[in-house]
Amino acid sequence: MQNDTFLRALRREPTDYTPVWLMRQAGRYLPEYTRTRARAGSFMTLAQTPDLATEVTLQPLERYPLDAAILFSDILTVPDAMGLGLSFAEGEGPRFERTLRDDAAVASLDVPDMEKLRYVFDAVSSIKRALAGRVPLIGFAGSPFTLACYMIEGGGSEDYATVRTMAAARPDLLARIVDVNARAVAAYLREQIAAGADAVMIFDTWGGMLTAAAYRRYSLASMRAVLGALAADTATRAVPTIVFTKGGGGWLDEIAACGAAGVGLDWTVDLAQARARVGARVALQGNLDPLVLLTDPETVAREAIAVVEAAGPAPGHIFNLGHGIVPRTPPDNVAALVEAVHRASRRAR
Amino acid sequence: MQNDTFLRALRREPTDYTPVWLMRQAGRYLPEYTRTRARAGSFMTLAQTPDLATEVTLQPLERYPLDAAILFSDILTVPDAMGLGLSFAEGEGPRFERTLRDDAAVASLDVPDMEKLRYVFDAVSSIKRALAGRVPLIGFAGSPFTLACYMIEGGGSEDYATVRTMAAARPDLLARIVDVNARAVAAYLREQIAAGADAVMIFDTWGGMLTAAAYRRYSLASMRAVLGALAADTATRAVPTIVFTKGGGGWLDEIAACGAAGVGLDWTVDLAQARARVGARVALQGNLDPLVLLTDPETVAREAIAVVEAAGPAPGHIFNLGHGIVPRTPPDNVAALVEAVHRASRRAR
Repeated sequence: MQNDTFLRALRREPTDYTPVWLMRQAGRYLPEYTRTRARAGSFMTLAQTPDLATEVTLQPLERYPLDAAILFSDILTVPDAMGLGLSFAEGEGPRFERTLRDDAAVASLDVPDMEKLRYVFDAVSSIKRALAGRVPLIGFAGSPFTLACYMIEGGGSEDYATVRTMAAARPDLLARIVDVNARAVAAYLREQIAAGADAVMIFDTWGGMLTAAAYRRYSLASMRAVLGALAADTATRAVPTIVFTKGGGGWLDEIAACGAAGVGLDWTVDLAQARARVGARVALQGNLDPLVLLTDPETVAREAIAVVEAAGPAPGHIFNLGHGIVPRTPPDNVAALVEAVHRASRRAR
Repeated sequence: MQNDTFLRALRREPTDYTPVWLMRQAGRYLPEYTRTRARAGSFMTLAQTPDLATEVTLQPLERYPLDAAILFSDILTVPDAMGLGLSFAEGEGPRFERTLRDDAAVASLDVPDMEKLRYVFDAVSSIKRALAGRVPLIGFAGSPFTLACYMIEGGGSEDYATVRTMAAARPDLLARIVDVNARAVAAYLREQIAAGADAVMIFDTWGGMLTAAAYRRYSLASMRAVLGALAADTATRAVPTIVFTKGGGGWLDEIAACGAAGVGLDWTVDLAQARARVGARVALQGNLDPLVLLTDPETVAREAIAVVEAAGPAPGHIFNLGHGIVPRTPPDNVAALVEAVHRASRRAR
C-alpha cells in the first residue's frame, strides 16, 4: 500500500497527517460522475456494472489527494437481493415493490444467496485492481436497522412512522427483521473483504430517530452482532471496522464499546468532548457540517482546521464530513478542504 | 390554584403523582379543534382571536385530566410582528414575505412594539379567566435561533442550508439576528407573564441541527440571555421556565446549566441516564415517542409507564411527549396515556 495513512489512523497509530475521505465523495457534485451516470442510464446500472462502479469510485481520487476510496454502491443492494424489488424512480428516492409489515412477510424473510450480490464483489475486485495499492478501499453496508427502515416503509420516509410504531407494538417482528439483516450484512461484508476491501463501514442512517431503548435493542445490538461475526472469523478479523449512527451523539459511550475500530460522528457532536469521553478506545471519524462545503474556500479551510484542532493531537482521527456531500457542492471547495486538512494536521504533528 | 402539581414538579418539589401535559395537546387530532379551526377560517384568525384561542386551549382539558394548559398560538407571531409578513398557505407550512439574508435586511431588524402582539396577551388573560384556577397556564415562545431559522429561510426547510452556511460564513449576521430575537422573546414572555402565564417555555425546534460550537453560540447563549432577562426582573423572576432543544440530548449538561427550571427531552434521550447526569439541578420534561400514540391503548399505557419508571422516584419529572402530538393520533390513545401516567406514578409514590 503506497498510502496507508487511513488504515493507520483507524488503528490509532501515529500518522504524519490526518487522513481524509468524504462520504459520497463519488457523486453528483462531480460533473464527471454525472456524465458516467448519464451514460449508464440508471443508478442501478451504474451500481451493477463493475467497470462503471470502478470508474466513478476513482473519479474523486483523480481530482483530490484523498486517503481512501470507498466502493460505489448502495446500501439497498442487500434487501434487493432478498427479493423486495428495488427501483429508483428519476428524481425520487428508492422504492421497494414489497414491504415487510405483517407476520407472513417477515416470516418469509431470509439471508439472500450472496451470488445475487456478485456484482458488488466484482466491483470491489475491479476497484482494487484499478487502485493498484494507491490508497485503501473501504467496503460498506447499511446497518441492519437502517435496512429494516426501508424494507418496512417500502422506501424513505419523513418520520418512519410504521417502523417506530412497530418498535413499540410489534417488537417481535422488528427483532426478527434486524436479526435476519444482521446475518445478511455479516455475510455481505465478509464477501467484500474476500474480494479485497481493506476496511468496512456500517452506515446507520436512521438509528438516531429511535428511543434510546429501541436503539440499543434494534440498531446497536444488531451492529454488534455483525461486528462479532466478523471478529469471530479468521478471514475477516484483521480488517478494521467503522460504525456510524447519524444522530447517535448522545449514545457515544455505548457505540464506542460495540466492537468497531472506529466511530463516525455527525456534525452535531463536539469532537473534543467525544475524544475525552471515549479516550483511546476507538478512532473517531468526522465531523465537518457538509453544508460548510456550500460556502467559499476560505470558510471551508477555516472550519476544516477547527475540526482538525478539535480532534487534538492524539492518534486516531480520520477527517470526514458529518454526513454525505450534498450534490450542489462546488468541487473547488472540496479541493480547499482536503488541502487544509493535510496542511494543518501536518503542521500540528 | 386547584391543581398545582405541574408547578410543584417544575420546582422539583414532591407531588402525589407525575403531572402530564402534551405538546400540541390542542390541535388537529381533536375533532372539536378541527371544527373551531374551520369556523375561524384560517390558522392566523384562530391564533389572533382571543375567544377562539381560549376555546381551543381548553378543549383537551375538557376531555382529559391534564395538569397544565398551554397557550394556543404559534412561535412565528414574533417575527410577524417584526414586519416579515407571515402567512400559512393551506396544506403547507408557514411562509414569510420577506427574508433576512443580507446586511441591509439584518441591519433593519428590531424588537417589535409589543402592542402588535396584544392579541397574544389578550388570549393569555382570556384563557386564565376561563381556567379559573383549575390548572396552571404555560406561555411560550420560539427560541431566538429557531425563529432565526424561519426568518432566514422564509419558512420551513429540509436542511436549513441558508442558516447553516450563514453560521459558518457570516457569523456576524446570524449573531445579530439571534441577539435581536433574544430581546424580542424576553419582552414577549414578560408580557405573557404580566397577562397571567404561570410558567413559560422556550421551544428550540431547530438548534439540534447545528454543530456543537454553533449551538452554543447561536442557540444556547441566546436562550440564556432570555432567561437572564426574566431572572433579572422582579416581575418575572418567580415564574418557572422550561427550555426544549429537540435533538439536544448530546448537550444535556450544558442545557441543564442555562438557567431554566426545567429541560425538555426528546424521545431519543435515555431519561434515567439524563436524570443521573443532571442530578437535582433541573426538572426534566418528556419524553415518550409521539408516534407511540399511533398504536393502541395497551401499547400506549405500557410505553408511558416505562417513561414514568425511567424518570425514577426523585421529584421533578413532568410527563410529556418527546415532540408534538401528530394529527392522526386517535383521541382514545391520549386518554389511555394520561390515565396510565397518573395511575402508575401515584402507585409508585
